[in-house]
Amino acid sequence: MYVSEVRFGSKTGSEISRQTLTWSAKAALEAEAVAAISCSGHGRVFLDGSISKDGELPVCECYACYGGLNCSEFIPGCAANVDSGDPIFFEPFWMQHAINSAVMISGWNRMSYRYADDSFISVELEKYVRKLHSIVGNAITEGRYIVFGVGSSQLLSAAVYALSSKNSSSPSNVLASIPFYPVYKGQTVLFNSQNFQFKGDTKSWQMNNNSTNNNDVIEFITSPNNPDGELKKSVIGAKAIYDHAYFWPHFTPINTPSNHDLMLFTLSKLTGHAGTRLGWAIIKDKDVYDQFLNYIMMADMGISKDSQVRGLKILKVAIEGDGKPLFKFAYDKMKDRWERLTFVFNKSTRFSIQQRHPLYCNFFNETRLPTPAYAWVKCEREEDNDCGAVLETTGNIIGRLGSQFSATDRYVRFSLIGSQDEFDLLLQRLTELVSLENPSIETM
Amino acid sequence: MYVSEVRFGSKTGSEISRQTLTWSAKAALEAEAVAAISCSGHGRVFLDGSISKDGELPVCECYACYGGLNCSEFIPGCAANVDSGDPIFFEPFWMQHAINSAVMISGWNRMSYRYADDSFISVELEKYVRKLHSIVGNAITEGRYIVFGVGSSQLLSAAVYALSSKNSSSPSNVLASIPFYPVYKGQTVLFNSQNFQFKGDTKSWQMNNNSTNNNDVIEFITSPNNPDGELKKSVIGAKAIYDHAYFWPHFTPINTPSNHDLMLFTLSKLTGHAGTRLGWAIIKDKDVYDQFLNYIMMADMGISKDSQVRGLKILKVAIEGDGKPLFKFAYDKMKDRWERLTFVFNKSTRFSIQQRHPLYCNFFNETRLPTPAYAWVKCEREEDNDCGAVLETTGNIIGRLGSQFSATDRYVRFSLIGSQDEFDLLLQRLTELVSLENPSIETM
Repeated sequence: MYVSEVRFGSKTGSEISRQTLTWSAKAALEAEAVAAISCSGHGRVFLDGSISKDGELPVCECYACYGGLNCSEFIPGCAANVDSGDPIFFEPFWMQHAINSAVMISGWNRMSYRYADDSFISVELEKYVRKLHSIVGNAITEGRYIVFGVGSSQLLSAAVYALSSKNSSSPSNVLASIPFYPVYKGQTVLFNSQNFQFKGDTKSWQMNNNSTNNNDVIEFITSPNNPDGELKKSVIGAKAIYDHAYFWPHFTPINTPSNHDLMLFTLSKLTGHAGTRLGWAIIKDKDVYDQFLNYIMMADMGISKDSQVRGLKILKVAIEGDGKPLFKFAYDKMKDRWERLTFVFNKSTRFSIQQRHPLYCNFFNETRLPTPAYAWVKCEREEDNDCGAVLETTGNIIGRLGSQFSATDRYVRFSLIGSQDEFDLLLQRLTELVSLENPSIETM
Repeated sequence: MYVSEVRFGSKTGSEISRQTLTWSAKAALEAEAVAAISCSGHGRVFLDGSISKDGELPVCECYACYGGLNCSEFIPGCAANVDSGDPIFFEPFWMQHAINSAVMISGWNRMSYRYADDSFISVELEKYVRKLHSIVGNAITEGRYIVFGVGSSQLLSAAVYALSSKNSSSPSNVLASIPFYPVYKGQTVLFNSQNFQFKGDTKSWQMNNNSTNNNDVIEFITSPNNPDGELKKSVIGAKAIYDHAYFWPHFTPINTPSNHDLMLFTLSKLTGHAGTRLGWAIIKDKDVYDQFLNYIMMADMGISKDSQVRGLKILKVAIEGDGKPLFKFAYDKMKDRWERLTFVFNKSTRFSIQQRHPLYCNFFNETRLPTPAYAWVKCEREEDNDCGAVLETTGNIIGRLGSQFSATDRYVRFSLIGSQDEFDLLLQRLTELVSLENPSIETM
């Protein structure tokens, strides 16, 4: 049995206290040894990373376009790949808040399927979810039910399941407004249920369906929208799933709390912990809530307790200082990126990005522009109808094609929430691209 | 910034080394403080447990039938509830192996959706899964693909999806052999897919379908079976999903490695970590594998990285000493419980349990009886056709009804994998129950 004597106190030595660590010291030392490996600021190393052939510790995992043992080598000619929605821009925040965000999980922690109250949902985590919404003012949670899911991804399916008409002889019609997040369609097609079917765009549906009976419609409203960041409202006015993944102060001014019957949120775009797969639904009706619970139980027998205990730690840090440190960090990053991006696009007539409109933000107490997670880029020239190809061949930039969002390929989505390296490379490539039409451009 | 100086060494002090903990010390101290709270051996306390009104630390969560602040009070007349399949009997093992099974997760650990190789699957974890199967000899993994899911629960759906005929105008027929695990039916009904439908028992299906073309059948084979522990083979000989959740040396002699095209396993019944929700599929065909990957991506955008890093720690301990410590611990527990259970049932003519047949176990190198996770109890008296009601009203024992497994209610399933308290209470209640017909019974 190992024993560790820990002298625990401030760096000044003024508050030294002696405590003993026994079973946890080895795991703590291991995690610190791994974290101490340098990846030159262009990568990081994880506990469960691959082990080098002659080593005992895992090796660096480099950000895109960097290589070498310590990620110090830039790969020349590497494309700026801003296709994914990985929220890596949060990493430095969590490195700065390492002490309070770390979690030590014992080998016997939460082995059961269920919590003490027989549910699949951590009461403490739910408490902090409610606290956070109250501080931010972005959603009403009073008198509402909360269910956790495997990211908000799983909750999209659970929501469609819960709202669909089980007894109907014809399936419910699932709609969204172009441009929309492709997973709405992808999941509906994958599950190929007899209860619901994907019927595409709300406006097209309205034109083709004059019926005043919209009870058999389930509408996805993504607000702010992925890909274009627009604040959206229901088009149909039927059963609605409000996907609020991006409804946080770093992406949009929070003007008024959302107060809909069914709202979805996710840790991924709130704190950057996409890998933890933790989302939640805020639900008004007891019947819908019960159907969510049934879905999560039957599909998965609940969600990871390890994700929930880590999510709790993360949310405890998120609400520190009434959320100001987290949201200020994230908003400052996004603001800086949007300013630099706008500077480049303003020099171009060939490429444009979405317009942004100022709104009062109750959280930051100021009128400000939205700073969406994605730039929705348009190729303005008549002949550039395959914008993705133009950007890739002329600019060495890889975005996500407009057709992925059921829009035209005259549009491409750029992620602005990746690592600083990724964004810097995007800016460099964009500057080079725009300088082809406007040689006077200089970077900020 | 806190700094901790750690003197790390053996208790004898002979191998002291000094190392410094910085960011991880607080989380380690917190976890140890929580773990040090006494729950009288009748409960445990977790990091994310509820906080008492006037306290800072979470409170004890008592095992069923125990109460009070420190779980010291037995609740008189409390029913022996052996309905759930919670694998809590493993808890003491992980408390004994606390040092190597703990994991410290930093705030910035694995924030991305994907691992460095762009997959949703930890390469290191996959390596240890293969190692473990090789040591135990219960499944062939060479030349097979492995996919992780949210427990094996999610993989049941993924498997049916992958094997179902997408282009067929008629749905695939999903079958299982009575008595079978209710989730097979439950999920199929929940998803209500156009690609597949649940058609019940294999034998009934065979009687009603003389067609030699069985291509549109997907058969679940649970081996050992839940609820009765039987080693099973395919009845239909069509597309097969081998659910091997219980195919480990603590539940059954491992006579020969399973070598089927599609096999499912789960951490839950292997190490007891049901709450971690980590299962895996071992897959022969590339096309089936690709469909699993598509399913996991579309349904959930991958599974929890926190579960995977913890699973890795747990499997590293599981393979220590070639798996002997873990499987010996678990087998000894199960063997002891079966001996005590058999002793009681042998005194009864009113109640019986399943027959067990010895088999050679290559892992333990001996011929032995299986020690299934569940007792499959039968009420033998003609009038006791609602065995669950008899056990509850006469014996104060709550099991899972036979009808849940599509069998008759003359059967009831008892879980034997709960906490020691739970099993001891079951034995006590059973002894009292059997003494009604056989007053000479004494407990072992």
